[in-house]
Amino acid sequence: MTRPTILVTNDDGIMAPGLRHLINIVRDYGDVVVVAPDKPQSGMAHAITISTPIRLEKIHEEEGYKEYACNGTPVDCVKAGEKIILERNPDLLVSGINHGSNSSINVIYSGTMAAVLESAAEGIPSIGFSLVDYSMDAQFNHAEKHIRRIIEQVVNNGLPERICLNVNIPSVNGGEIKGTKVCRQAKAYWDETFESRVDPRRKDYYWLTGVFKNLDQGEDTDEHALANNYISVVPVQLDLTAHHVINTLKKWNLNGEDK
Amino acid sequence: MTRPTILVTNDDGIMAPGLRHLINIVRDYGDVVVVAPDKPQSGMAHAITISTPIRLEKIHEEEGYKEYACNGTPVDCVKAGEKIILERNPDLLVSGINHGSNSSINVIYSGTMAAVLESAAEGIPSIGFSLVDYSMDAQFNHAEKHIRRIIEQVVNNGLPERICLNVNIPSVNGGEIKGTKVCRQAKAYWDETFESRVDPRRKDYYWLTGVFKNLDQGEDTDEHALANNYISVVPVQLDLTAHHVINTLKKWNLNGEDK
Repeated sequence: MTRPTILVTNDDGIMAPGLRHLINIVRDYGDVVVVAPDKPQSGMAHAITISTPIRLEKIHEEEGYKEYACNGTPVDCVKAGEKIILERNPDLLVSGINHGSNSSINVIYSGTMAAVLESAAEGIPSIGFSLVDYSMDAQFNHAEKHIRRIIEQVVNNGLPERICLNVNIPSVNGGEIKGTKVCRQAKAYWDETFESRVDPRRKDYYWLTGVFKNLDQGEDTDEHALANNYISVVPVQLDLTAHHVINTLKKWNLNGEDK
Repeated sequence: MTRPTILVTNDDGIMAPGLRHLINIVRDYGDVVVVAPDKPQSGMAHAITISTPIRLEKIHEEEGYKEYACNGTPVDCVKAGEKIILERNPDLLVSGINHGSNSSINVIYSGTMAAVLESAAEGIPSIGFSLVDYSMDAQFNHAEKHIRRIIEQVVNNGLPERICLNVNIPSVNGGEIKGTKVCRQAKAYWDETFESRVDPRRKDYYWLTGVFKNLDQGEDTDEHALANNYISVVPVQLDLTAHHVINTLKKWNLNGEDK
């Protein structure tokens, strides 16, 4: 049997320990091509690079393994991996392990998950992994057996068309992960504040900071699972249509008919 | 009655004719604050600026009107408009008019729609307008009465919590728009190619290009409406959970139980 081809990317960049951990895991499951940003790309979401050219630098190559740094975003990395390096779709895409949570509303800011959505749009089974710990010396070992099980389940079962997985891993500080729960995305938002400062030329500038606000106490949410030391697995779709609102809007007078 | 406060942004940047057209329309409906990127930010999706500071330059101020250029992304513009300029939420956010389609899968790449989603997450009624014409001398006049009607309907009816509108306008080349249709997002993707070139120092570089692939012949889709000279209105939600897949995944052996 041919070994599957696995494309790996992330948004923390090619040097991130989380990426190294994920590469080490997936090399057991297939031939691996890594195309990761050459610098941190957190918060780049689904950005693509259209006004500057894409460059790829080969970092390493050996039997069953290739690694490239890309000057673009995580989504650029997926496209470049498929179209320039592989010249076909991989059998599986994994992104991460992100240093920091991509649960709940974070999915829309996340470069890690944007790479996963991009790949899902092309029909590739795709999984994003994130650890709820922003530090660069975050520990990943406690999650390894769970990550392996999720990858094995996706390899064995496939995923429905254009559906991908958003996997978030609690940081349990040496404790034990209790298990894995399939969840929905919690309803939340970021309440931003800007720290205002004045530069040496007396011009104002602002640093974006924010506080995460969870509006959702549901026990079926990713936030609830993570708070209780479970790994959250949210199936994510590309269709953003609020189908339940269509009939309401159809009753509006959008065409200016007399009533 | 107090006039509503309307925040306006876009992703083509403060100089874009589409933004000017939208500003002219919404000034009839309330006090207007414009915070738009100081340079084109197309394809920036939901990116936020976290490693460099945000700056704002006041362009113009008069009774009921303020205009600022921001060095950040469209999502940064929304946050800065609310937190730095207004110091509260506006009553309405409009984004656009984008030069180019944000129908179908384009919603996930779009800075125009990212601004709208960001604002919706904060509970603000929010609408993104896009014209299916990428040129900077695109004509917007044929759409004005329809845009006004959509804004009036949102002002009068409000929008359900955390639901925003993605409005796309066909380019009819002097012809007539037939009306407005409430639609779902068509299933589609971009099939990318990279144009490979060699720079003067003999290094490869690549330009991202792509072909839009519509996988969805549904007559209830935005693509179908636009192809038939209708304006498409898609209600868009922040919840990316594929709820219909949760039960399938719950049957998987994610916790390694013996069977």
